[in-house]
Amino acid sequence: MPMPDRDLLCDSPQLTDLYQLTMLQGYLDCDMHQQATFEFFVRKLPDNRNFLLAAGLEQLLDFLECARFSDAELDYLAGSGFFRQNLIDYLAQYRFTGAVHALPEGVLFFGNEPLVRITAPLPQAQLIETRLINLLQLPVMIASKAARCRMVAGDAQLVDFGLRRAHGAEAGLHAARAAYIGGFDGTSNVLAGQRFGIPIFGTMAHSFIQAHDSELAAFRAFAESHPDNLVLLIDTYDTERGARRVVQLADELASTGVRIKAVRIDSGELGDEARRVRSILDAAGHPDIGIFASSSVDEYLIRSLVKRDVPIGGYGVGTHLTTSADAPYLNCAYKLEEYDGQPRRKRSSGKATWPGRKQLYRYLDESGLLRFDRLCTEDEMDSGGTALLQPVMENGQRLQSPESLDHIRERVRDQLSMLPAPFRDLDEQATPLLQISDALQQLAVETDRLSNGGSG
Amino acid sequence: MPMPDRDLLCDSPQLTDLYQLTMLQGYLDCDMHQQATFEFFVRKLPDNRNFLLAAGLEQLLDFLECARFSDAELDYLAGSGFFRQNLIDYLAQYRFTGAVHALPEGVLFFGNEPLVRITAPLPQAQLIETRLINLLQLPVMIASKAARCRMVAGDAQLVDFGLRRAHGAEAGLHAARAAYIGGFDGTSNVLAGQRFGIPIFGTMAHSFIQAHDSELAAFRAFAESHPDNLVLLIDTYDTERGARRVVQLADELASTGVRIKAVRIDSGELGDEARRVRSILDAAGHPDIGIFASSSVDEYLIRSLVKRDVPIGGYGVGTHLTTSADAPYLNCAYKLEEYDGQPRRKRSSGKATWPGRKQLYRYLDESGLLRFDRLCTEDEMDSGGTALLQPVMENGQRLQSPESLDHIRERVRDQLSMLPAPFRDLDEQATPLLQISDALQQLAVETDRLSNGGSG
Repeated sequence: MPMPDRDLLCDSPQLTDLYQLTMLQGYLDCDMHQQATFEFFVRKLPDNRNFLLAAGLEQLLDFLECARFSDAELDYLAGSGFFRQNLIDYLAQYRFTGAVHALPEGVLFFGNEPLVRITAPLPQAQLIETRLINLLQLPVMIASKAARCRMVAGDAQLVDFGLRRAHGAEAGLHAARAAYIGGFDGTSNVLAGQRFGIPIFGTMAHSFIQAHDSELAAFRAFAESHPDNLVLLIDTYDTERGARRVVQLADELASTGVRIKAVRIDSGELGDEARRVRSILDAAGHPDIGIFASSSVDEYLIRSLVKRDVPIGGYGVGTHLTTSADAPYLNCAYKLEEYDGQPRRKRSSGKATWPGRKQLYRYLDESGLLRFDRLCTEDEMDSGGTALLQPVMENGQRLQSPESLDHIRERVRDQLSMLPAPFRDLDEQATPLLQISDALQQLAVETDRLSNGGSG
Repeated sequence: MPMPDRDLLCDSPQLTDLYQLTMLQGYLDCDMHQQATFEFFVRKLPDNRNFLLAAGLEQLLDFLECARFSDAELDYLAGSGFFRQNLIDYLAQYRFTGAVHALPEGVLFFGNEPLVRITAPLPQAQLIETRLINLLQLPVMIASKAARCRMVAGDAQLVDFGLRRAHGAEAGLHAARAAYIGGFDGTSNVLAGQRFGIPIFGTMAHSFIQAHDSELAAFRAFAESHPDNLVLLIDTYDTERGARRVVQLADELASTGVRIKAVRIDSGELGDEARRVRSILDAAGHPDIGIFASSSVDEYLIRSLVKRDVPIGGYGVGTHLTTSADAPYLNCAYKLEEYDGQPRRKRSSGKATWPGRKQLYRYLDESGLLRFDRLCTEDEMDSGGTALLQPVMENGQRLQSPESLDHIRERVRDQLSMLPAPFRDLDEQATPLLQISDALQQLAVETDRLSNGGSG
């Protein structure tokens, strides 16, 4: 008995840190409902990242539009001993009514550059902090790592294989979307395919081979079931023998019109295995059968295989992509920059921020390469640059319908073409390009001087 | 208008790799519905882990009991071009009817030891692979890392602060549960508190301080709103000045009976900051106000702070725990070991498995310390050891109601006390203790000899 469709996004505002709610109790008790501006940014890029790509905005906007507390959640809070009835009443009525400015998905950004700016009554802007960071960090990491893979892979097919090693369900879904944004051709993740319209890929695992009485029997059975999608996994027992069985099957199938698209290799030293398999296939007159490789693939391995000119036409990239294994978190934050018209900033050791509502301008050179970015106060007119933060939500409502993923993918291709060579290098650490405008530096000095936080 | 409660577990079997479904099409076409046994195990522990803890079983059993395809999912599959109607009809009726054996949550395990064993008709046992790995890997990683923190933290309070940097919603929820299993005292994650009955912790962020006109005004406002839960964040502007303001407030509050429980430090070199703050508080006659520290805390930092005997009574552990940053994935797999009564195994380079249904026995020495584990065929009677794989599901139904988290936490304490010293060391790499029984080694030889995969 099939069930109705479901919404898999967790839209519960209860998915938050307790301190957001204890702070809200304080704000309500002091009647602090004035407009607050918070900005989300990455303080410093991981050592092994020269750029990041904006991603995850659509999921954030969905959350802001849909998040409501359920009765059971309110009951839990009321019984927790932390809160009084005025907070429970407030949360029962909660909906986000604020404004959002953001970098469009797929735009390049760097350390200390605001990716999203929220302006809303203080309790609302505060409440969303935890989930906002949670929703943005992962897609940014994955889209950026996917772009690194694409930059070194040339035209090779790249498929996200990461769902099983993703950190939970939502991570698998959002990583598939972000990988596609970053330049992958598709995903093995069926639900992501359905939900986001991403092309899906997949054929067989070792268990299919093992369940049959022989490898050749398994190949034959699969060819019968999937004459149009025939990629055969050949390393279950012995890769070269697997390749010879593929040749045998290809010859058997010759008269039927069924074509073996590719073989997949999922173990061993992929470059050496691919060369041996290529020789066997070519010698038997099957240069048209491609080779697809998986197993611990990441951008570094792809680069080394491409440099060696190995005969691999596509890669399944799983664990290392989906967990962003070499940089599994970002040093990112969502910080109050203005309250009730007054700029604010924190000055904690190593974690100081630039105050006030800001805009980010980008400057290119005459050949279209990135020269520098400049962080400015919102009302500065910075001539010659392009303002990157765009209004995307007002009064809690989206200003545009969601962008298509194809459109975002095109933007990523454009953006990556703006990167100067050192930023494209996987190993070199490129020098950040961010300038701070004079007006913003002045505002920081003023903010510190006026701040009673310092002296009062 | 509050909304009804919701179920946040993603129970969609569509959250899977496409190849599971293309293989199912093949199994159906060949009428391969016999019983299959798959085992889930970690091939080799990460270099910086000497043990792992079983975790995530309850969420897996929930999934196995609840997973059904929705109409929209079936429509998507039918329109995908990969499948024929016999598969769609099968999936519309799909429910898991198999048996599960597993290590109870909280049990120690090591490389190549089965954590979960599934026996079910082949298509069912195959279909669940992706989500099974996805549901088990993260809790195992987090429970194990939490236990490492607990082992070095002594009696210090440990609170999970990781939700914001978790990889999505489900990761945040499941990590909070796993951290609690591993020995944490609670979490900042409100929804995890509600859902799993975990104690929740939290007071204020820097934004609360910044939103007020002065730090002291913020402290006073918070004390008024939260007289029973008063932990003050003191590093927004200047930590030592913050500490002196806490002293001022404590003196103001003395006559009211309101007590400041602790201060929190979230930046700088935590040990030095804590000592300076301790001096200020003590000199002012407030030795009862505790110090809670957060910011890039992990087991290595806790160990070094504890060794220096710094005056910190509790830690908020976020990013490094929730992403298992120093080991963000496990080299884990779910492999077919038997089909239709015949043992199977794969022999891929570096990825060979032991065939057949297996049982894992544990042997302790006279002082209760772990001596070795032995992997046996299921029907071997291995005398003197304890069989670790327990039946937990039959015919798709749980055999017991879920264990309480308190019970699992107790088990973890017992289990950790069985670890020999080298396994408790954060740096040393302990030698694995797994033996393979003679019967199992013999079975592997037989399987390879008989397997038509090799010769047919």
